[in-house]
Amino acid sequence: MIKTAIAGASGYTGLELVKLISNHPNACLEAVTSNSYQGKPFTDIFPSMHGFESLVCTPFDAQELSQKADVVFLALPHKVSMAFAPQLIDKGIKVIDLSADFRFDDIKAYEAVYQPHTAAKLLEESVYGLCEINRERIKTARIIGNPGCYPTSILLPLIPLLKEKLVSPLGLISDSKSGVSGAGRSVSLSTHFCEVNEAFGPYKVGNHRHTPEINEVLTKAAGETVSLTFVPHLVPVTRGMVSTIYAQVCAGVTEKQIRTVLDKWYGNEPFVRILPLGKFPNMSHVKGTNFCDIGFHLDPVSGRLIMVSAIDNLLKGAAGQAVQNMNIMFAIDEKAGLDWVQTPL
Amino acid sequence: MIKTAIAGASGYTGLELVKLISNHPNACLEAVTSNSYQGKPFTDIFPSMHGFESLVCTPFDAQELSQKADVVFLALPHKVSMAFAPQLIDKGIKVIDLSADFRFDDIKAYEAVYQPHTAAKLLEESVYGLCEINRERIKTARIIGNPGCYPTSILLPLIPLLKEKLVSPLGLISDSKSGVSGAGRSVSLSTHFCEVNEAFGPYKVGNHRHTPEINEVLTKAAGETVSLTFVPHLVPVTRGMVSTIYAQVCAGVTEKQIRTVLDKWYGNEPFVRILPLGKFPNMSHVKGTNFCDIGFHLDPVSGRLIMVSAIDNLLKGAAGQAVQNMNIMFAIDEKAGLDWVQTPL
Amino acid sequence: MIKTAIAGASGYTGLELVKLISNHPNACLEAVTSNSYQGKPFTDIFPSMHGFESLVCTPFDAQELSQKADVVFLALPHKVSMAFAPQLIDKGIKVIDLSADFRFDDIKAYEAVYQPHTAAKLLEESVYGLCEINRERIKTARIIGNPGCYPTSILLPLIPLLKEKLVSPLGLISDSKSGVSGAGRSVSLSTHFCEVNEAFGPYKVGNHRHTPEINEVLTKAAGETVSLTFVPHLVPVTRGMVSTIYAQVCAGVTEKQIRTVLDKWYGNEPFVRILPLGKFPNMSHVKGTNFCDIGFHLDPVSGRLIMVSAIDNLLKGAAGQAVQNMNIMFAIDEKAGLDWVQTPL
Amino acid sequence: MIKTAIAGASGYTGLELVKLISNHPNACLEAVTSNSYQGKPFTDIFPSMHGFESLVCTPFDAQELSQKADVVFLALPHKVSMAFAPQLIDKGIKVIDLSADFRFDDIKAYEAVYQPHTAAKLLEESVYGLCEINRERIKTARIIGNPGCYPTSILLPLIPLLKEKLVSPLGLISDSKSGVSGAGRSVSLSTHFCEVNEAFGPYKVGNHRHTPEINEVLTKAAGETVSLTFVPHLVPVTRGMVSTIYAQVCAGVTEKQIRTVLDKWYGNEPFVRILPLGKFPNMSHVKGTNFCDIGFHLDPVSGRLIMVSAIDNLLKGAAGQAVQNMNIMFAIDEKAGLDWVQTPL
Repeated sequence: MIKTAIAGASGYTGLELVKLISNHPNACLEAVTSNSYQGKPFTDIFPSMHGFESLVCTPFDAQELSQKADVVFLALPHKVSMAFAPQLIDKGIKVIDLSADFRFDDIKAYEAVYQPHTAAKLLEESVYGLCEINRERIKTARIIGNPGCYPTSILLPLIPLLKEKLVSPLGLISDSKSGVSGAGRSVSLSTHFCEVNEAFGPYKVGNHRHTPEINEVLTKAAGETVSLTFVPHLVPVTRGMVSTIYAQVCAGVTEKQIRTVLDKWYGNEPFVRILPLGKFPNMSHVKGTNFCDIGFHLDPVSGRLIMVSAIDNLLKGAAGQAVQNMNIMFAIDEKAGLDWVQTPL
Repeated sequence: MIKTAIAGASGYTGLELVKLISNHPNACLEAVTSNSYQGKPFTDIFPSMHGFESLVCTPFDAQELSQKADVVFLALPHKVSMAFAPQLIDKGIKVIDLSADFRFDDIKAYEAVYQPHTAAKLLEESVYGLCEINRERIKTARIIGNPGCYPTSILLPLIPLLKEKLVSPLGLISDSKSGVSGAGRSVSLSTHFCEVNEAFGPYKVGNHRHTPEINEVLTKAAGETVSLTFVPHLVPVTRGMVSTIYAQVCAGVTEKQIRTVLDKWYGNEPFVRILPLGKFPNMSHVKGTNFCDIGFHLDPVSGRLIMVSAIDNLLKGAAGQAVQNMNIMFAIDEKAGLDWVQTPL
Repeated sequence: MIKTAIAGASGYTGLELVKLISNHPNACLEAVTSNSYQGKPFTDIFPSMHGFESLVCTPFDAQELSQKADVVFLALPHKVSMAFAPQLIDKGIKVIDLSADFRFDDIKAYEAVYQPHTAAKLLEESVYGLCEINRERIKTARIIGNPGCYPTSILLPLIPLLKEKLVSPLGLISDSKSGVSGAGRSVSLSTHFCEVNEAFGPYKVGNHRHTPEINEVLTKAAGETVSLTFVPHLVPVTRGMVSTIYAQVCAGVTEKQIRTVLDKWYGNEPFVRILPLGKFPNMSHVKGTNFCDIGFHLDPVSGRLIMVSAIDNLLKGAAGQAVQNMNIMFAIDEKAGLDWVQTPL
Repeated sequence: MIKTAIAGASGYTGLELVKLISNHPNACLEAVTSNSYQGKPFTDIFPSMHGFESLVCTPFDAQELSQKADVVFLALPHKVSMAFAPQLIDKGIKVIDLSADFRFDDIKAYEAVYQPHTAAKLLEESVYGLCEINRERIKTARIIGNPGCYPTSILLPLIPLLKEKLVSPLGLISDSKSGVSGAGRSVSLSTHFCEVNEAFGPYKVGNHRHTPEINEVLTKAAGETVSLTFVPHLVPVTRGMVSTIYAQVCAGVTEKQIRTVLDKWYGNEPFVRILPLGKFPNMSHVKGTNFCDIGFHLDPVSGRLIMVSAIDNLLKGAAGQAVQNMNIMFAIDEKAGLDWVQTPL
């Protein structure tokens, strides 16, 4: 049994982690920490969990966590993670961090969009937890920077095509759409029901801080600088994410070549589904699962490739991928706790 | 391993049954039948199930089903069930029928709201599958009439109080609210997105055909005629059901007595949660689970009791209770396949 | 031209008032006040109003308002209204207050659920602005206590039947359902999109502070103490309200008598629609209008009467009724600015 | 008073036309036709219109309509319109057709995606009713092909920039998102509430039949062949449309130049709002209005231009633009009946 703890369990990602661990055949949950709810039962935060989880929230205490857990999931705000992670690593605990603090290779890229980094050494050591791409390095990692939801939905379809030189690294676009849970559980006018319901539009056009995370990884895959145009939109649904990606194929590339490459990379992957010709992903098909669905269409005349990916932003885009990372780190079945059938309806 | 089959798998209840069986540790799915989709893979109907279920839909054939399955779930329209059920029972197969065809004790009550019954013998034998109430008889039943969603949400809170003479059988009211999946997957203007979205109202006021089903069971519990006033409403959500029930307590009955009785009846039940004083159920707390949550408030001056129950109409109100019935019939852990944590968010 | 001002224009009720006055043939808007947005254009709060309204928000200043306006709508929190209203009345300005501060006849009833009242004299003078019922007194009022949305939806159907002794004042129940805009625009976890979406349930069971407002008016209508059981529920829609009301008719009362009385009271009312037999109101039928739709069903055997009313909580339940009150107070066409066709879809 | 009639009034576009004419100061509605509802009052189709519209639906009869109306709106399916329009034109009645039948200059382009055209002469004469662009020709037109909703949202932002050579005609992309009412009121599984709610995804990728309509107009504007990549998506809201458009600016073009051109073209237009720098459109800001909101962002390094437009698909994208066309054709105030404040909330 892998003993786990969750720091920052009062948000939506925390809730998903609690549920995933509850269902996990090889892991158990030993502690949940929460600043705002310390001393209160977890079911005070989420009454739906009554009967499933009886833990009481504690304040974060690295010493205490290190005695209880083999691995700690940090579902904390950016900046808080980098303060807590080193304390845990020092005590020999593995860390899977769901904030942006340990996702970057280039500390300057991080600091340009977030803030000064106070754990540079650990950042250098950390592995970007995009499971299908970095599996080997994840196996031996002490600390994982769990990818953002937008990056996951964009990187999985694009990396193979860039690596295999099927699409041009120039002029890439991702028109992405996210459910509201991606904005977290903190209250704000922008997540007020009456402001979001029956509404739809883009936000942070031209300066979303996920862009550098995406570009750093794509650049590595392409072997040359990639500067993707990224426009996020808010959809009035609770969970789900779709990215519609536009790329130019390299001269002569056919629909069949693209399919062959995607099948080669993902044909045996348990959590990536390449859809048949003419079928496209939908948020509703992956809701409640750890899947990333990918469909595509190539206009042979213009060479314009349209790829569409869908994930559940809280699962493959956050808690699900985090558990998948844990499974890899602890050398158990990668599907453990993630292969049951959720409620897409 | 219990071998199961589902007849009529192309509706929402069929989908839920497929998912529940897929997750079930002691049951497997051997066949799915569908008139409209015969010859097609189940994933053509529900693309979200790709990777979970590879069965191809067949037409209904009692002979074939009897060779494959120990128990058949009938997720068929009323009237079709009563034609198919006897064929299966004759071949020694157990049947759990999710239509209204085998729910009534009184054949005349059934015929008054539905149509002439063509399997009267079997109707007489069938057991009403309200698990918490009829568990003993379910154990040995060959055929189960799985309760309707509205009746389940009303009967579970009321039966103990009527049996124990805490509330008057006169003047009972249930103001009930259902998500849209309760109307099934057939297309009609009344389930068109634009007609339901941002809308709310009652329907079938004064003549919903679930009323006789409710009254028959309540009358048995009370030992005298009960004629509950029932008003169903449609809520613009996919799944969930809440019943707000109004009753008059018998002279001198206290809040504590009511709690004591509910605790006695349900304290050890795995799928009924009696909420603490001042807490009330919400569709979102039970979505994706087999729970029935019950909360209540007693106005000591007027003796007016307000009870609120919530279920997932597709689970405790249909497929979940059906699997619970199967577990009881086959003498396995009643919680098997139903105690994992779903996605309430 | 009636010159109007709106104090507290940054909430949803404020927005509706601004829109209604913009469309009004006999009224114009001279000032909008807002504490949090003072100095900012109104379109900063509501970008949709760009091109319709160019006013800049000012702080509340009775002196200034009195020079600009003939009437001021107070869309302020309870308690703030009672501080501001006397200043305006003193300067000869008419006031329509949308808070609870001037709705009660009995100051003790107000103080029991809100707080000490600091403008007792004015409270005594104020008229409860339920237009169809109090039209004569509204004509000459200096200050109006504009009814709450729940009370409006319950009082309009019940008052005629109580006055004419068709239903018993005992055992009245209103099971009411409101859209989320009823909770206002302030941020809180309870109006977070992900908490409300795909959810449904009751709140404040047994102690909602609209109950005393309802009971005071019903008691006056019935000529004896009425103690209605009121349970509000939250529906995941932006706007709309439905009340399902249960009453016992007096001995021998028929469906026809009820219809006759309702037709007598409301047959010539421009904003009340009595639906034909077998038809029932829906939030979607009144959305964006000032209508109150009323339908009913009488079970002749039990004498149980089911009445259903629907209003737009922001219009007939707030801003629409406020403008209707203004029209009456200023002796212009009561329908002015309210009889155009909105967007029910 | 302009006398109008609506053929095919039972759909959502028909309903919007009825509402707009009801509110119009210079137009009245003389007849509504409907095949499926003939003989029934219009309020049987849309109960919300009770009290606003008392017309009874008649079958389509050109002779009768010609005696009652000056102009007929055809809210009919493609192919039906081209059969009916010539009969009306022959009788001297003006026609505004909301189907695709009279939108194309090139009959072959129409026939490639729809069917053989049976009114080629009239097609040649018809004017594409994109008001801001074709105003002069609309003034004298006998028949208008009212633009599709997707084309309207894409053409308004792009035409000025192509005409003035600010963006390249190569590599244009529109990632568009529509509310569900765009799919019409006919029942189908794809508009079933449970299939659309909490779902989001693209449809008809690579072959939507609005593409040729868009390309024909853009090609004319650019003076060279344009082949826009168009991907429509379905958003779980009732009404609204957003197009996120990606273009490459011509060498040296600045943000300021783009703004100057848009201001020149649209600065005096009553129904186009160019948003300030850093602000972007949202469906909720234009819902219930005839506005097209446009915002944009230019990345000066890459020369990538992101334009975002939003319209109400049923108004500026259908019925609103149709009435605007009528106003132009009859030489009355173009804003008449369209400048009141609707309900964006």
